Amino acid sequence: MLRLRTAKKVFEFSSCRHLKEICRSEVVGKEFRRTKVLTVDTMNPHVKNIEYAVRGPIVIRAGEIEKELKQGVKKNFTEVIRANIGDCHATGQKPLTFLRQVIAMCVYPKLMKDPSFPDDAKQRADRILGSCGGRSLGSYSDSAGVPIIREDVAAYITQRDGIQADPMNIFLSGGASEAIRNIMKLLMTTLPGKDRAGVMIPIPQYPLYTATIAEFNAQPIGYYLNEADKWSLSVEELRRAVTEAKGYCKPRAICIINPGNPTGQVLTRQNIEDVIKFAKEENLFIMADEVYQHNVYAEDSKFHSFKKVLTELGPPYSEMELASFMSTSKGYMGECGFRGGYVEVINMDPTVKAMLTKAISAKLCSAVTGQAAMDVVVNPPRPGEPSYALFKEQKDTVLGQLSEKGRMTTEMFNSIPGIFCNPVQGAMYAFPNIDIPKKAVEEAKAKGLAADAFYCYSLLEETGICVVPGSGFGQKEGTWHFRTTILPPVEKIADMLNRFGDFHVKFLNKYS
Amino acid sequence: MLRLRTAKKVFEFSSCRHLKEICRSEVVGKEFRRTKVLTVDTMNPHVKNIEYAVRGPIVIRAGEIEKELKQGVKKNFTEVIRANIGDCHATGQKPLTFLRQVIAMCVYPKLMKDPSFPDDAKQRADRILGSCGGRSLGSYSDSAGVPIIREDVAAYITQRDGIQADPMNIFLSGGASEAIRNIMKLLMTTLPGKDRAGVMIPIPQYPLYTATIAEFNAQPIGYYLNEADKWSLSVEELRRAVTEAKGYCKPRAICIINPGNPTGQVLTRQNIEDVIKFAKEENLFIMADEVYQHNVYAEDSKFHSFKKVLTELGPPYSEMELASFMSTSKGYMGECGFRGGYVEVINMDPTVKAMLTKAISAKLCSAVTGQAAMDVVVNPPRPGEPSYALFKEQKDTVLGQLSEKGRMTTEMFNSIPGIFCNPVQGAMYAFPNIDIPKKAVEEAKAKGLAADAFYCYSLLEETGICVVPGSGFGQKEGTWHFRTTILPPVEKIADMLNRFGDFHVKFLNKYS
Repeated sequence: MLRLRTAKKVFEFSSCRHLKEICRSEVVGKEFRRTKVLTVDTMNPHVKNIEYAVRGPIVIRAGEIEKELKQGVKKNFTEVIRANIGDCHATGQKPLTFLRQVIAMCVYPKLMKDPSFPDDAKQRADRILGSCGGRSLGSYSDSAGVPIIREDVAAYITQRDGIQADPMNIFLSGGASEAIRNIMKLLMTTLPGKDRAGVMIPIPQYPLYTATIAEFNAQPIGYYLNEADKWSLSVEELRRAVTEAKGYCKPRAICIINPGNPTGQVLTRQNIEDVIKFAKEENLFIMADEVYQHNVYAEDSKFHSFKKVLTELGPPYSEMELASFMSTSKGYMGECGFRGGYVEVINMDPTVKAMLTKAISAKLCSAVTGQAAMDVVVNPPRPGEPSYALFKEQKDTVLGQLSEKGRMTTEMFNSIPGIFCNPVQGAMYAFPNIDIPKKAVEEAKAKGLAADAFYCYSLLEETGICVVPGSGFGQKEGTWHFRTTILPPVEKIADMLNRFGDFHVKFLNKYS
Repeated sequence: MLRLRTAKKVFEFSSCRHLKEICRSEVVGKEFRRTKVLTVDTMNPHVKNIEYAVRGPIVIRAGEIEKELKQGVKKNFTEVIRANIGDCHATGQKPLTFLRQVIAMCVYPKLMKDPSFPDDAKQRADRILGSCGGRSLGSYSDSAGVPIIREDVAAYITQRDGIQADPMNIFLSGGASEAIRNIMKLLMTTLPGKDRAGVMIPIPQYPLYTATIAEFNAQPIGYYLNEADKWSLSVEELRRAVTEAKGYCKPRAICIINPGNPTGQVLTRQNIEDVIKFAKEENLFIMADEVYQHNVYAEDSKFHSFKKVLTELGPPYSEMELASFMSTSKGYMGECGFRGGYVEVINMDPTVKAMLTKAISAKLCSAVTGQAAMDVVVNPPRPGEPSYALFKEQKDTVLGQLSEKGRMTTEMFNSIPGIFCNPVQGAMYAFPNIDIPKKAVEEAKAKGLAADAFYCYSLLEETGICVVPGSGFGQKEGTWHFRTTILPPVEKIADMLNRFGDFHVKFLNKYS
């Protein structure tokens, strides 16, 4: 990961204004520090330790290049392709008509009388408003969410798993991120040294996890996914990781991302059973990040929820504590900006659940618009309803294209010498492995950069393609990767992959 | 404040299901604790310390009474009046037409072609979408917010204060609460004992502050507002508080709520100057909670922003660090559910500002719908635009009624023997002082309740009026208060105040 310690060296390499600001303040810092209450030396040190590559310096540089292009600066390319973040609509995906109709009517109820809006959308909007104070989206909801929406989420889970879900276990949140932070917060021991809370996370991982763990001053316990076997998860590796960790922290939880981010793998049912049994042995709280549950493309893959597997395993597994996270931002809807999400907690101690409610109460509630979007996600048009045909067409198109783009991406990367890419079984990303010549590794080192960060900066400057270095997600020592989304439109992704191949060959030639 | 320690005793008093759950889990707790990873003994102790009266047990009890009424249980009243929370639309205020039209078009852009939507609303919606990725509210924004909206906020502040504001200093957030937490987080030292960060807060205060300080394991430094002088703020009292605090923590910041919550006072310009000079002397970061800046009713009161006063004082004051918070939830719009808010930071060390950006990046962005609502708040219809007349009428009606209800409330409370209430100069609350007879104080004590919590529980059970005990906000030892909003509609507020008077007289008779 590009650490801020290395920012001064990046300065020479990039013209990023933010980094310049950082460097300047370090140069003249002594003067600042005499007069400011808050300086880099006196601010919360845990916040300093946060790193978040998906929006790190390389992405800031991409924004600057976009501005340069607008100002007419000549480059080898005419636009930046932002493949750094799973931001579906920003890369061309169209919103679901039904979802937007429901929200628009909730926002402006006069539209309920507009004959161009279908009846099923009107019914949904009316039902949501009926559960809002004063029939307004502008009222606070209960801290855990609008009652009807919690019920609809529970009904969705019940149908998905064939196992009864309780609305009282559903807590709506500002995207899944907020829910993950809320649950992780409960797990903190706040003790130092060997008593620090340890949280098991996959390597590679989605950087929200390391960022949150850093902020809470806890201990990440990385377990490696097996790249040689389609990023699968082995219990032997979990054992190795937890055994080592017990020497320096108190392991309390295990996070699993399924389907995987950034790796795109989909866990088998057997794999999930193994993880659950391991967590039981080690007395770990399970955090299942299942935000990509609708994004499964590989024909031999299927989404199995941790809740279903755990419940079907029977006692004592079915009594284990589990938090499962979901979002409106991914799937086929891609409504990132609405910040809708939820966590279902099962088998949580009632006192702890009351404490969770209390802790989120101080933030009042998550955006009710995001909650309403979540309601549509869990309660979409059904066969026979007027909006069903269009909804199904839009959903199938998005998922079909994602599947196709995942296949294209894998094939194209694997056709480039020195790049190896596992199949995109699910989610929205590929995480290819790149050979970086020794000479390039050394040049990167001299610039204070990880070799894959150097590679990605070069890629961005020469082709306008913005991807995130593997070092931002974690990877086996000595291996190099990057994460790319599979979101750009088909024609753009083909162009991107071509440009990528040309760049890679030139890069290899330059440094071998 | 009703502490959880006292929950077991409340159990006898109330039938609250949440509290029952808590008690039951304490009784059978030993068994839970053998099998659960997360129990009240092993969870994050700082989360346990959070208290948030505005949504505390008394409000949970109000929800239960509502259910009982629905089930046909006979009571002395037919509905609960929720005067516990500043939830404008839930208590009958109507949304601003213009704001909702703009958001509806942003959500469902097809409406831009609907001739029933006015042109100025269309222009606003088009402008917001033009600054969103893929012209969709469903895209993530920059972590600090949609660029155009940051510009509009800066323009609003520039016009308000006559002092240039920089869009790069504006950070949009999920309500003001999130922004307050983000800034406070930076101020934490994370050190124990005497090195703990101390944060000065008014007593009484809005419980978000104590909740956040508890969660961050910091030290609240209470300074008392002067009830005998319309809840004014004296520098002598600030000095007393900070001097005492230096013995046990490191004072780093001062929070000021102006107009005041729960006290409804509006600070004079002289008062603000004094606070700024005090903060300079003590080298404190100023956090100015100015979410009620549109809510000033008293004829001799005026809102002065801390930024304007500090800037006009000139050096060295104009170089001080300040964070000013604003929200879509209050004012005349009352769009609480949209979770729109922002902080303007001024004179913040650029490195610290980069760290703030990084820290909020891990949460991606605040709800873009809330950001769009904020845009309308800072960029409302102007004279000459088609929506101006209706907008002005709606705004003036809400503010006029709030002013009238503030006056009614004060007068009515002051007409009841044993209640004293300062004028509601601003904000949305009254915080009357109540004499509670010794016998009632003792009965409360026996039940494990603060005397004003006992009073408010009795009020709720007998009249259906839900207000929050003063102990949830803090008050001088030996005094008792409650906070009521002035939000219910005029006719309901008149009825509420009548019922209140009857209850109070009966209560006095019963316990004297």
